[in-house]
Amino acid sequence: MTDLPRLIATEEAFAPREYIDAFLDLTKSVDTATSRYLAIYYRQAEAVRQLTDLDYRIAEMDAHGVDLHLIGITGPGVQAFDAARGTELATIANDTLAAAIGRHPTRFAGLAAVAPQDPAAAAREVDRALGSLGLNGVIINSHTHGEYLDDPKFWPIFEAAVARDAAVYLHPTFPSDAMIEPYSKYGMMGALWGFGADTSLHAVRMILGGVFDAFPTLKVVLGHLGEAIPFWLDRLDNRHANIVRRGGLGPLGMKQLAKSPSAYFRDNFWITTSGMMSDPPLRFCLDRCGDDRVLFAIDYPYEQTAEAVAFIRAAPLDRATMDRVTHANAEALFRIAPLALRRAAVQGV
Amino acid sequence: MTDLPRLIATEEAFAPREYIDAFLDLTKSVDTATSRYLAIYYRQAEAVRQLTDLDYRIAEMDAHGVDLHLIGITGPGVQAFDAARGTELATIANDTLAAAIGRHPTRFAGLAAVAPQDPAAAAREVDRALGSLGLNGVIINSHTHGEYLDDPKFWPIFEAAVARDAAVYLHPTFPSDAMIEPYSKYGMMGALWGFGADTSLHAVRMILGGVFDAFPTLKVVLGHLGEAIPFWLDRLDNRHANIVRRGGLGPLGMKQLAKSPSAYFRDNFWITTSGMMSDPPLRFCLDRCGDDRVLFAIDYPYEQTAEAVAFIRAAPLDRATMDRVTHANAEALFRIAPLALRRAAVQGV
Repeated sequence: MTDLPRLIATEEAFAPREYIDAFLDLTKSVDTATSRYLAIYYRQAEAVRQLTDLDYRIAEMDAHGVDLHLIGITGPGVQAFDAARGTELATIANDTLAAAIGRHPTRFAGLAAVAPQDPAAAAREVDRALGSLGLNGVIINSHTHGEYLDDPKFWPIFEAAVARDAAVYLHPTFPSDAMIEPYSKYGMMGALWGFGADTSLHAVRMILGGVFDAFPTLKVVLGHLGEAIPFWLDRLDNRHANIVRRGGLGPLGMKQLAKSPSAYFRDNFWITTSGMMSDPPLRFCLDRCGDDRVLFAIDYPYEQTAEAVAFIRAAPLDRATMDRVTHANAEALFRIAPLALRRAAVQGV
Repeated sequence: MTDLPRLIATEEAFAPREYIDAFLDLTKSVDTATSRYLAIYYRQAEAVRQLTDLDYRIAEMDAHGVDLHLIGITGPGVQAFDAARGTELATIANDTLAAAIGRHPTRFAGLAAVAPQDPAAAAREVDRALGSLGLNGVIINSHTHGEYLDDPKFWPIFEAAVARDAAVYLHPTFPSDAMIEPYSKYGMMGALWGFGADTSLHAVRMILGGVFDAFPTLKVVLGHLGEAIPFWLDRLDNRHANIVRRGGLGPLGMKQLAKSPSAYFRDNFWITTSGMMSDPPLRFCLDRCGDDRVLFAIDYPYEQTAEAVAFIRAAPLDRATMDRVTHANAEALFRIAPLALRRAAVQGV
C-alpha cells in the first residue's frame, strides 16, 4: 500500500447552498427540460449534502485512498442565471471553496466559477480567484444560455486565464434550449449522452472559431477522455482540409486557421478520465494525446469513487505513466504542490 | 498485386438526376441551413455528375483497384420531401440503381432507398427492392424531418427489413432543424461535425427506445467507425445503470431494456471505415467490436478514393482480419457473391 501513487481527482463537483436555493427558486419561473431534470435532483437530501457540505466527502476520499479533490462548481452552476445573479453566485462559490481548501489544504484544490454572462466581471473574478483566493484554475460549464466561448465577447475571460496561466475546465452541461429537444427522450439529455454532445460541439467550435490562434497558450481541460474528440481527430483534419480545398471557407463562414484542427487539440487541450472507467479508451487517448495530457478524475458525487479508484489502480499502465495520470499531470497543470510525503506515509500506513 | 484482397467499398453515394432536380426545386420554397448548403453543392456540375452518372465512377474504381461499390442514395435523399414525393423518388432511385447493377453486376451492389414519411409504403419498397430488384440492403439517411426511428410508427420498415434479413445502413444527414443552430457555424453542420452528432444520437435513441428488443435480429450499419459510439460504450452502460439504480427510468421516460446499451451495439451493429482513414480508431474499433463487424468504405464522391484505398491497403492488419474488413464481412452482411476469381485475376494482372 505504501507504494500507491498519490491520487488526485480532477473533476469533483460541489455547489454552495446558495446555488441550490437559487436554482430551485429559478425553476419556479423557468420551465425547461433542464430545470425539471435538476429540480428533481436538487430535492434529494443526500444529493444536496454531497454537493454542498464540502467536509462530508473527506470520509469517502479516505475510504478509497483519494488524496485530493480538485473541486469545481456543478453544472449548469452560475451560468443558469442572469448576469448579476450569476456573478454574485460565482463570488460566493469561490469564497466557499477557498474556505474549504483553507480547512483541508492537503485534500482540496479548486477551480474558480465565473459567470460568462458578464465577461468583464468574469475576467476580474478569474484574477481574484487565481490571485488572492489561491484557486488552481477555472471551470466553465459549457454554453451560457446557448452561447459558446468561440464568441469573441467572452474572450476577456481567456485573456485573464492566460495572464494567470490558469487552465479552463470546459465541463459539460445540458444541451442548450436550441438543441435539447432531440436529446430529451430516454434520459439522454444528461451524462448518458447530451453532456458529451454539447461539450464536444463547444470545444470544436472553440477550435474552428480561432480561439487558440488568438490565445496560443490557453489551456483547456475536457472530461470524459476528451468527449470523444480524440476519436475524431483525423476526420476533423480531413474534412476541414476538404472544405479549404474546395474553397468553402468563405461560403460556409469559416475562419482561416493557422494549424489543422487536431493540432490545436494536441497543443491546447488536456483530458481527464471522469466517467470513463475503461481501459481501451484510456489506452487509446494516451496513445493519441500523450501521457502528459491525461489526468485522473472521478466526477464525485455523480460517479462511484470505489469504481473510479479501482479502475485507475488496476489500469495496465507502466509506473511512469501511472504517476503522470494519477497526480503528476494534475500537479503541473493546476499547480498543486507535490507532497514530499505521500498521504499514505503521512498516515503511517 | 495478384495477392491483393478483393476490395468492396460499402458507403458509396449516388443520386438519381430526378432527386437533384427535385431538391433544387424544393430549395425555392424551403430555406434552411441544409437547403442552402446543398443548393450550392448541387449546382456544381462535377459533383452532380459523380452522384448521378453511375457509370462514371468505374474509371476511378479501376484506377485504384476498388472491386465493388455498395451504392446508396446520398443524404438527405428522399427523406427531404413529403411522403408522396419521397416515396416516388425512392422507387425511381431503386430502379435506377438496379439498372446500373444490371450493367455492372460484378462492380456494383446497392442499398434500397425508402421514404419513412410513409412507413407502410417504405416497408413495401423494402420488400420490392430486396425481392424482385435484388438489392442488398436498405439505407436511411438518419432523421426524417426531425423524427427518429425509435418512434414505433416507423417500425413496419424494420419488420420488412428483418423479414428479408436486410441490413439497414443508418447514414448521416444534417442535424434536424430542431438542433442545427449551434452546428451552423464554421461549416460544422455537415461531415465536419454535425453528421456524426446527429447519427450517433439517432443510433443511441434506437437502442434506448427498445428497437432491438422489438427486433432482436435487426442489423444496423453505421459509417465513420460507428460515429464514435464505440468510444462511449462503457460510459453508456455505466450511466444507464446509474439511472436504473436511482429509480430514474420512470421519471425520465425511459424504457426497461433487456440488455445493457453496449450489448445491443455489439449484437446489432456493424460499422464501416468511411471517412476514418486512420489506424488508431480502426484498431480501437476492431478490438471493441470484433473483426467480423468492421467493413471498408470510401464514401465516394465525398472522400478521396486514392486516400481511402491507400489507408486500408497499408493498415497493419493480419491477413485474416484484412480479408474480413476489405470484403468478407461485406459479402456476408449484404449477400454479395464472393468472386471465385478476384478481379485482379480476371484482368490477368
